[in-house]
Amino acid sequence: MSLRNDALAVMKAAFRAADPVQAVLRHLRLSGDTLIAGRTRYRLSKFRNIYVIGGGKAGATMALALEKLLGKRIGGGLVNVKYGHTAPLKRVAINECGHPVPDEAGVAGSQRIAQIAAAAGEKDLVLCVVSGGASALMPAPAEGISLAEKQATTRLLLACGANIHEINAVRKHLSTLKGGQLARLAYPATVVTLMLSDVIGDNLDVIGSGPATPDQSTFTDALGILAKYDLLEKAPASVRERLRQGVAGLIPETPKSLLRTQNLIVGSNRLAVDAAKAKAKQLGYRTLVLSTTIEGETKDVARMHAAMAREIVTSGEPLRPPACLISGGETTVTLRGSGKGGRNQEFALAAAVDIDEMKNVLLLSAGTDGTDGPTDAAGAWCDGTTLARARKLGLSAAQYLAENNSYEFFDQLGDLIRTGPTNTNVMDIRLVLVGS
Amino acid sequence: MSLRNDALAVMKAAFRAADPVQAVLRHLRLSGDTLIAGRTRYRLSKFRNIYVIGGGKAGATMALALEKLLGKRIGGGLVNVKYGHTAPLKRVAINECGHPVPDEAGVAGSQRIAQIAAAAGEKDLVLCVVSGGASALMPAPAEGISLAEKQATTRLLLACGANIHEINAVRKHLSTLKGGQLARLAYPATVVTLMLSDVIGDNLDVIGSGPATPDQSTFTDALGILAKYDLLEKAPASVRERLRQGVAGLIPETPKSLLRTQNLIVGSNRLAVDAAKAKAKQLGYRTLVLSTTIEGETKDVARMHAAMAREIVTSGEPLRPPACLISGGETTVTLRGSGKGGRNQEFALAAAVDIDEMKNVLLLSAGTDGTDGPTDAAGAWCDGTTLARARKLGLSAAQYLAENNSYEFFDQLGDLIRTGPTNTNVMDIRLVLVGS
Repeated sequence: MSLRNDALAVMKAAFRAADPVQAVLRHLRLSGDTLIAGRTRYRLSKFRNIYVIGGGKAGATMALALEKLLGKRIGGGLVNVKYGHTAPLKRVAINECGHPVPDEAGVAGSQRIAQIAAAAGEKDLVLCVVSGGASALMPAPAEGISLAEKQATTRLLLACGANIHEINAVRKHLSTLKGGQLARLAYPATVVTLMLSDVIGDNLDVIGSGPATPDQSTFTDALGILAKYDLLEKAPASVRERLRQGVAGLIPETPKSLLRTQNLIVGSNRLAVDAAKAKAKQLGYRTLVLSTTIEGETKDVARMHAAMAREIVTSGEPLRPPACLISGGETTVTLRGSGKGGRNQEFALAAAVDIDEMKNVLLLSAGTDGTDGPTDAAGAWCDGTTLARARKLGLSAAQYLAENNSYEFFDQLGDLIRTGPTNTNVMDIRLVLVGS
Repeated sequence: MSLRNDALAVMKAAFRAADPVQAVLRHLRLSGDTLIAGRTRYRLSKFRNIYVIGGGKAGATMALALEKLLGKRIGGGLVNVKYGHTAPLKRVAINECGHPVPDEAGVAGSQRIAQIAAAAGEKDLVLCVVSGGASALMPAPAEGISLAEKQATTRLLLACGANIHEINAVRKHLSTLKGGQLARLAYPATVVTLMLSDVIGDNLDVIGSGPATPDQSTFTDALGILAKYDLLEKAPASVRERLRQGVAGLIPETPKSLLRTQNLIVGSNRLAVDAAKAKAKQLGYRTLVLSTTIEGETKDVARMHAAMAREIVTSGEPLRPPACLISGGETTVTLRGSGKGGRNQEFALAAAVDIDEMKNVLLLSAGTDGTDGPTDAAGAWCDGTTLARARKLGLSAAQYLAENNSYEFFDQLGDLIRTGPTNTNVMDIRLVLVGS
């Protein structure tokens, strides 16, 4: 019981760090007239207006935090959020739109966001909130390109095996906001962008396609990428035409540098893992953060975590018990069966097989968004008794694993972790606890 | 250059610890008339004869170490080895036989080994050497069962998805030597078994099928396992008959306890990893042993090692540079292409993709047997320059990885590790080095 309670407490500490309101208020505070954002200080009396713009699944709750902090100082604004992801805002408008497939509501909202940015002047402060889904929720195809044409281009690149950097380089050059262009629109206003990172590595130019971050890629790069994958003919004519005009210098490049901008990561897997580590230490565990950037096939990642648990038990390496290993990132599941589950539940199921009958060992995996795959669970936990308890119910872990049916497995055991949707996402948290 | 030299030095230290001669002489020594084996002491003058028996790919070299140590005190003996795996022995005979598929030469040698054991008396000391391949190299089907029938039973179990414990339980009950029966044959002689472990977890009853280790499984278990997989009809009649006679108490059970036996692990992945750790420390690295029991799909295990390298670089966790992570065990490769490679070379290739352009990071993976898959390399190494160097040669890492063609990739780069066959096997060693 105690290992389980400890694991849940550690997980909750990580989730708290990822909560949009907590995340914003932890990195932004008021001291009299001064807004302290990370290490930078802004004298608010210098500004005429404060606007809040941005997008992402956590857009409304991040704006809520800003309203809590700044109240009537906020002059207005607009955030694009996924349908249903709202919050009781008083000063900032909410525009619900399509995700993961962008829609015209998103385009319309993005145009209004662009107008707010463009209208902001030297004496205005623009607070921009960016979180998971922002790229799809702030679709702003460049002039002459339709949303459908932009999406078709992305699909072509994906089908050719282009990597995410290549896809982003092309998309930024087909957009009016991505790749630092939103911040350029707002200039000479001051732009402070608050980011909840849902991407491996927390690169500022990748989170939400970097609306306020200089872009190092060029029109020439973008055209070269289409050529590399032999897509110059297949891409929509409007896309080809725009990239050629860009290469010819007829359209401004994405900004290679930006003035009066600050990008501040307020929530990330790293920050959630740090919070988990602090909590585990407080509970008396020796802690080790393995990595916050773990990708790869879930069940093999699970097996490696289980192997480390086994080593702690047999040799006291890499830590002597009581030990808590923490890892983050986001793994993938190659579907073989037609069961119900998510990567976090599959992690726990695969680990359960490898730690069968081990004492004093517990593994847990949970997605900080609270919804692991198409399920109502955030994740699951397992220990050395999982398989025996399953057998009593007539459940074969190997079979459920082969069918990617981790949800049904843990639901029957009562070992699912249900937090409800958290309206945030800083990827996953995995814990290995070994008691002494 | 320095990271690479350090990695090779650390790897060599691990390989040295796994060398059969070194391994035996590190755990067995003479002090006057006393043979010290681990923590146990034997007064040699008490014994009339010393015999050396056993099997495994390292059988001849382990016997060579014993001849070096004990010289003329050895009265004789016989070891079963794989064809070609010989050594210049003077007092112990060598019988070359089939591996991994056992043959009649193996059966004949096993009978002679059994005779030596059976002839040994109270005043004799039997030194038994066991190493990788011993199970196949010491085939001793029980009376009334042919080698072909025993092999057919194993194949049936494998095809049904029986796990290794189940397969071993059946096989021990179809054998005259496995499951402690060799040591029982030798009783009342004293039996000291020296083991080079090539199995995950180093369980004494698994290494070489535990010829001198009590067996907890029973005839009833064995028959139940055949029934579980619905193999009672399909198994050879002789096998069914023997198991039924055993259940009826007409044939002696495998021994549940053994007197005058000592099992001593002289080489193992654990001991090799310890040696690697000591060497890395000596070279100034902070060290962390992740686990010695890592299994799972190679490329995903590689990705997790790469993610840890990335974390060390970006946040100094789990170690601050200069850091050396060490892991052991044996992964698998699901073949998708028809290229040439092995799990260690595939590890380096998959890792190379994830650490592309990172500075001061090197990963290495090598099989302690010196032959990774069907290649003449033990493994390979990679760093942040691997992909760039490959591109210059027109090689795509992603493509070579998809084709499981890691050997051809690293051969062209000159980054293979070639040690030649080592005549030992304690699984694999993986290293992650991050310089400061």
